[in-house]
Amino acid sequence: MDKLTEYLNAHREDELHPSEIANLLKDLDEKSFDDAVHSIPKDLIADVALELPDRYFGDIVESFTAEEIAESVSELESDDQTDFIQELEEIDEEKAKKVFEALDEEYQADILQLKRYKDEEAGAYMQTEVYTAKLSQNVHDVIRDFARLRREDELENVTYLFVTDEHEKLHYGVGLDHLLIFDFTKTLAENINENPEQYRPIYATDYDDIDDVVQKFQKYDLASMPIVNAKGRLLGRITSDDILDIINEQATDQMYHLAGLNDDAEEDENIFRAGKLRAVWLSINLITAIVASIVIGLFESTLQSVVALAILMPIVASMGGNAGTQSLTVVVRQLALGDIAKHDAFRTIKKEVLLSLGNGLLFALIMGIIASVWFDKGMLGVVIGLSMIINLLSAGFFGSVVPLLLKRMDVDPAIGSTVVLTTVTDVVGFFSFLGLATLILL
Amino acid sequence: MDKLTEYLNAHREDELHPSEIANLLKDLDEKSFDDAVHSIPKDLIADVALELPDRYFGDIVESFTAEEIAESVSELESDDQTDFIQELEEIDEEKAKKVFEALDEEYQADILQLKRYKDEEAGAYMQTEVYTAKLSQNVHDVIRDFARLRREDELENVTYLFVTDEHEKLHYGVGLDHLLIFDFTKTLAENINENPEQYRPIYATDYDDIDDVVQKFQKYDLASMPIVNAKGRLLGRITSDDILDIINEQATDQMYHLAGLNDDAEEDENIFRAGKLRAVWLSINLITAIVASIVIGLFESTLQSVVALAILMPIVASMGGNAGTQSLTVVVRQLALGDIAKHDAFRTIKKEVLLSLGNGLLFALIMGIIASVWFDKGMLGVVIGLSMIINLLSAGFFGSVVPLLLKRMDVDPAIGSTVVLTTVTDVVGFFSFLGLATLILL
Repeated sequence: MDKLTEYLNAHREDELHPSEIANLLKDLDEKSFDDAVHSIPKDLIADVALELPDRYFGDIVESFTAEEIAESVSELESDDQTDFIQELEEIDEEKAKKVFEALDEEYQADILQLKRYKDEEAGAYMQTEVYTAKLSQNVHDVIRDFARLRREDELENVTYLFVTDEHEKLHYGVGLDHLLIFDFTKTLAENINENPEQYRPIYATDYDDIDDVVQKFQKYDLASMPIVNAKGRLLGRITSDDILDIINEQATDQMYHLAGLNDDAEEDENIFRAGKLRAVWLSINLITAIVASIVIGLFESTLQSVVALAILMPIVASMGGNAGTQSLTVVVRQLALGDIAKHDAFRTIKKEVLLSLGNGLLFALIMGIIASVWFDKGMLGVVIGLSMIINLLSAGFFGSVVPLLLKRMDVDPAIGSTVVLTTVTDVVGFFSFLGLATLILL
Repeated sequence: MDKLTEYLNAHREDELHPSEIANLLKDLDEKSFDDAVHSIPKDLIADVALELPDRYFGDIVESFTAEEIAESVSELESDDQTDFIQELEEIDEEKAKKVFEALDEEYQADILQLKRYKDEEAGAYMQTEVYTAKLSQNVHDVIRDFARLRREDELENVTYLFVTDEHEKLHYGVGLDHLLIFDFTKTLAENINENPEQYRPIYATDYDDIDDVVQKFQKYDLASMPIVNAKGRLLGRITSDDILDIINEQATDQMYHLAGLNDDAEEDENIFRAGKLRAVWLSINLITAIVASIVIGLFESTLQSVVALAILMPIVASMGGNAGTQSLTVVVRQLALGDIAKHDAFRTIKKEVLLSLGNGLLFALIMGIIASVWFDKGMLGVVIGLSMIINLLSAGFFGSVVPLLLKRMDVDPAIGSTVVLTTVTDVVGFFSFLGLATLILL
C-alpha cells in the first residue's frame, strides 16, 4: 500500500490537508503518480493541484471531468479560484471555460473581478471573502452572524472583523482578540468609540503595488490586511500566508534574474520555453564575450611575443568577475530588502570600492609573486599585479553603481546588471593586463 | 522641522510604529541621525534599534543609558528581548550585562532559556508569551482572564488559545474565530469535545529545525504555531511575522552563498570582517583560475602558432560559465523550495542536460560561423563549435549534479557549488578548445 493511501485511510475521520496529499504525490514516480491521482478526494482536486509544482497541474486536471473540477473549485477561496482558472486557461482553454461555466454565478463574478488585476497589483492577491459588520450593529448579533457563516464554511482563518458603513466604506479593523473583550451588549460603535485610534485599519488599495503591501505586512507584523478601492470601499483581504508565498516568489525571481532565467518559463512543463529564454540571455552574453575578444585581438602581436600572457589573462578576468559579483549581489539584495536608503548610495559605493581595493591589493601581491616565479619574469608579476588592482577596483565600483543606477531609473536591478558587470570586468581585465604588458614588457 | 519630528508630533495621540520611526531615521544623513536619535520615544528605543539594519544598532545604544535601554527592553516580547541582549553583547558586553541585570527576574529567566537554543532550532525563534487556559475552565472565565491580560498589555497579536492540562501539556489549539462561537456558559472541554479533531494543534518541538517549522507554516497556512518540549509541555509560540523574516533571511543566505558572501559579515558595521570573508572566497577562486591557466599552459606551443585561439578561448569558457550558472541556480533554488523530490534527481539532470545541449548546438553554429569568418579559417569554426557543445553539455550536467550531490551529502548546495562549477566549465572549456585545436588545426 502506498503512502498516500495510508495517509487517506489514517485520516478518514478528520480534516485532510491538501498540501500533505500534494507532498505524498510529489514523492511518487510517474507511473504510481498516475494511479494515485484518482485517489485524491474529489472535493480537494483543485486544492491539491494548486499545492503541487506547476508541472503536475496538467496531469491532475486531465484526470477529472470539468464537473468534478468545478465542484472542487467551489471549495476554494476566491483568490485561489482565480489562480486555478487562470492556470487551467493556459493549458486547456476549452476545459477552463467549461469549469468556469459550471461555477455559481457569485463565484464567476468574483473571478472576473480578480482576473482584471495585473500581477503586480494588490487586487490580484486578495480574496473577496471577509468578515464584516456595520458600526450600528450590536456585538452580540455580529458574533451570532459570524457563527452562522462559520458553520456554513463560508469564512476561514479569520483574524479581523472589518467594520464598514452603509456604503461598504471601511472604517475600522477589530482584531478578534479585541472583539472577544468588547461589551457584547453594546454596539460596535459604542465599543470602538472608547479608543477609536486603536482600530484604525492599516489597509492598501486594490491598485497598490504588491511590493508595498508586502513591506507593510513586515513593518506592522500583520496577519491580514483589508484591501479597499479608491473610494475606500472594502473589496477583500490579503492574508499572511499569501505574503509568505509572494516573498518566496520575489526571492526566486531575484536569484533567477541575476542568472538570466525566467521564473515562469522554468516552472513550465514545456522545457522548450525555458530553453528559448535561456538562449536569449546566452546570446547577450555571447555578444559581450565577443567584445572582450575584440579587446584581446587589439593586442595580437603582444600575445604572439609573450605567450605567458595568454595563459594568465583569464585569471585577471575571472577574479574581477567574482569580486564584481560579490558587490553586485550585496547591493541588489540590500536594495530589495530596503536596507539601502536614498542617501546611502554614496556610502554603499564607497564601501564596495574600499572592499574591492583592499582585496585587489592583496591578490595583486599574491598573484604578482606567483606569476613572476611561474614564468621566471619579475616584470610579468608587476603587470598582472597592477591589472588585478585596476580590475578589482572597477569591479567594486561598477558592481555597486550599476544596480544603484538601474534602481534610480526604476528598472529591476537584478535584471541585466550581471551582464553589464561581466562585460566591464572582462574588458577592463583584458585591456589593462594586455595594455600594461605592451607598455612594460615589450 | 525634520520628518521624524513631524511624525512624532502628528501621532502624539495614537500608537507609534517603531518600524515607521526606523524608516524615517534611515533616511537621515549621519549628522541629522545623531540628533534625531534622542527624539525616539524612550519606551521604543529597543524596538526601533531592532527594526533598523544592524549597522545602526551601535549608534542607538550608545545614545542612551543602560537603565533607559532596560526600560524599553521590558516592553518587548521575550524573543525580541533575547535578540536585543544578544546583539548588544556582540558590541558592548559590559552594557549588555548592565541592561540584563536591570530587567525583571521573570524576563531574565526567559532570556536565559531562549539564549540556549542554536540558530537553527525552533526554540530560538519562539516567544514565551502565550494565551493558555485549562480544559476544565469555563469559556466565560477564560475570556475574562484574557481581557485582564490584554488590558495589562501582556499579550499581543493573539490568534490562538492554547489549551493545556494541569502539567502544562498542550492538548488543543483553538482559533479565536472558533472561541468566539463557543458556548460561553460551558467549559472548554465540553465545547471542544463536540469535534475534538478540529482542534488538534499543529505544533513543533523546541529542538526542531526552523526550516521544518517554516515549511509547516506554508503547508498549513498558519498564523501562529505552538512550540512544545519533548514531553509535550507548552513552551511558547512562533508567529507568522517571525516566519516572514526567516524566509527573507534564508533567501538572502542563499543568494549570498552562491556569490561567496557571508550574510552576518556583510551586515556588520565593520567592513573588515566582510572583506576578510570575501577574500577567502576569492582565494578559492584564484586557485581554480590558476588550475585553468595550467590547462592553458599545456597548449603553449599551439597558442604560439595560432594566436586566434588566445583571442577566442575566453568565449568558450564564458558561455559555459553562464549556461552552468543557469542550471545551478534553478536546481539550488528548486531544492530549497522543495520542488525537487527524491526521485526527481534523474529528471532534473536530464532536463538540464537537454536544455544545455540544445543551446550548445545553437551557439556552436552561431559562433562557428562567426569564428570562421572573423579569422577566415573554416576549421577554426569547427573547433570552437565542437568545444562549445562539449562545454555547454558539461555545464548543464555539472550544474545540476553538483547541487544534487551536495544536498544528498547534507551540505548546503548553495555553498561551494558555484566554485566547483566554474572550475569545471573553465577547465573543460579551455581543454576541449585548445585540445581540439591541437588535433585539428596543427
